[in-house]
Amino acid sequence: MSLAVTRGNTGAGARRPGRQVIIDAAVRCFYEHGYDGSSVRDITQEAGVTAAALYHYYTSKQDLLMEIITRFMANSIERTEEALRRAGPDPVARLFAAAQSHVLWNASDVASSFIVNSEIRSLDDANRERHIAQRDTLQRMFDECVQDGCDQGVFAAPWPREASRAVVVMCTFVARWYRPSGPLSPDEIAWRYGHMALSLVGASRGPQFEAPTYGGV
Amino acid sequence: MSLAVTRGNTGAGARRPGRQVIIDAAVRCFYEHGYDGSSVRDITQEAGVTAAALYHYYTSKQDLLMEIITRFMANSIERTEEALRRAGPDPVARLFAAAQSHVLWNASDVASSFIVNSEIRSLDDANRERHIAQRDTLQRMFDECVQDGCDQGVFAAPWPREASRAVVVMCTFVARWYRPSGPLSPDEIAWRYGHMALSLVGASRGPQFEAPTYGGV
Repeated sequence: MSLAVTRGNTGAGARRPGRQVIIDAAVRCFYEHGYDGSSVRDITQEAGVTAAALYHYYTSKQDLLMEIITRFMANSIERTEEALRRAGPDPVARLFAAAQSHVLWNASDVASSFIVNSEIRSLDDANRERHIAQRDTLQRMFDECVQDGCDQGVFAAPWPREASRAVVVMCTFVARWYRPSGPLSPDEIAWRYGHMALSLVGASRGPQFEAPTYGGV
Repeated sequence: MSLAVTRGNTGAGARRPGRQVIIDAAVRCFYEHGYDGSSVRDITQEAGVTAAALYHYYTSKQDLLMEIITRFMANSIERTEEALRRAGPDPVARLFAAAQSHVLWNASDVASSFIVNSEIRSLDDANRERHIAQRDTLQRMFDECVQDGCDQGVFAAPWPREASRAVVVMCTFVARWYRPSGPLSPDEIAWRYGHMALSLVGASRGPQFEAPTYGGV
């Protein structure tokens, strides 16, 4: 089944050119015209493939949307896990790293990020349920991180859950305004958002990391 | 011209039932299916009016989208201005009030908020330019507020512009998760976001306002 996408987009076939060409075309169509505004014909034309080629990999347009959303979310989760793992046990370092990573991932693919955050309405019930489970998994990693910091007295967020959600939202929606032609590199933006996330949760100290090479504050 | 909507949706004709019925139907269609996924026929069917009735008020589907976006943004601007005016000169009180107001407004109409924040792609060039001017006006009010606080030494945001944008984003996108069936009232959420906005900019003190009647922190 084409929906069996593993975390980090490493599933068998996920990188086969034919399949990726179709996914890329679907992302462009959904990003520009929305799910209901894009037909299978629009997607095959954009991809330069036949309908038969598309149906070789995907059973439906719904199937394509779900793969785009599932891949993106699986990547979000995997990258956040990796950032937390590398950061070690300190809640300050963990939240800083998770926020940075989340900004970088969303800025790296603004089109898919947009689709994930605007086309949940277009998922059928079973797919929406799967998506919500992924979204909850991601949010829970941030929630635990903020709660740990509060429990250890290094964060002073009166409402840890709301603060954690606000952090995820502000990092996710960097994709709405970030453009490569802007004045700041993704690394610089991510570094600043890491600090702003700490500020939002009332961190009592900074992440004790070096500024990126652009020169710092 | 139907696009001559005044701030705060008080323009002549803006409240005429026929017109409002069409706008409400367009909001439902665009919210559910996107702009490209909704035809004029879908909108007239949803509104229960004839195409002639729609074209009496609006020249095109584009015209309808622009009215939805322009009205919403004009309201955002007017409400932020009003919140700032009531808050007086203190930057702490001003940012608190502006963030609160922005949350309340976006939570009050999650469908229009969604359309404003996902269908900019569907505006034609002239309309997009007008929208960007409105968006910049709104952002500038927050920017000035954060910058004033930094200048007066009551905020400690190393990057006032980024912090200001993050505040607007986190307050705007409350509309993405807020549902009336949730555990917190809009007033309670807005009150918490007011505080989180102050935390994000490194405010040295609170807004010295009473908690809403739900019981506070």
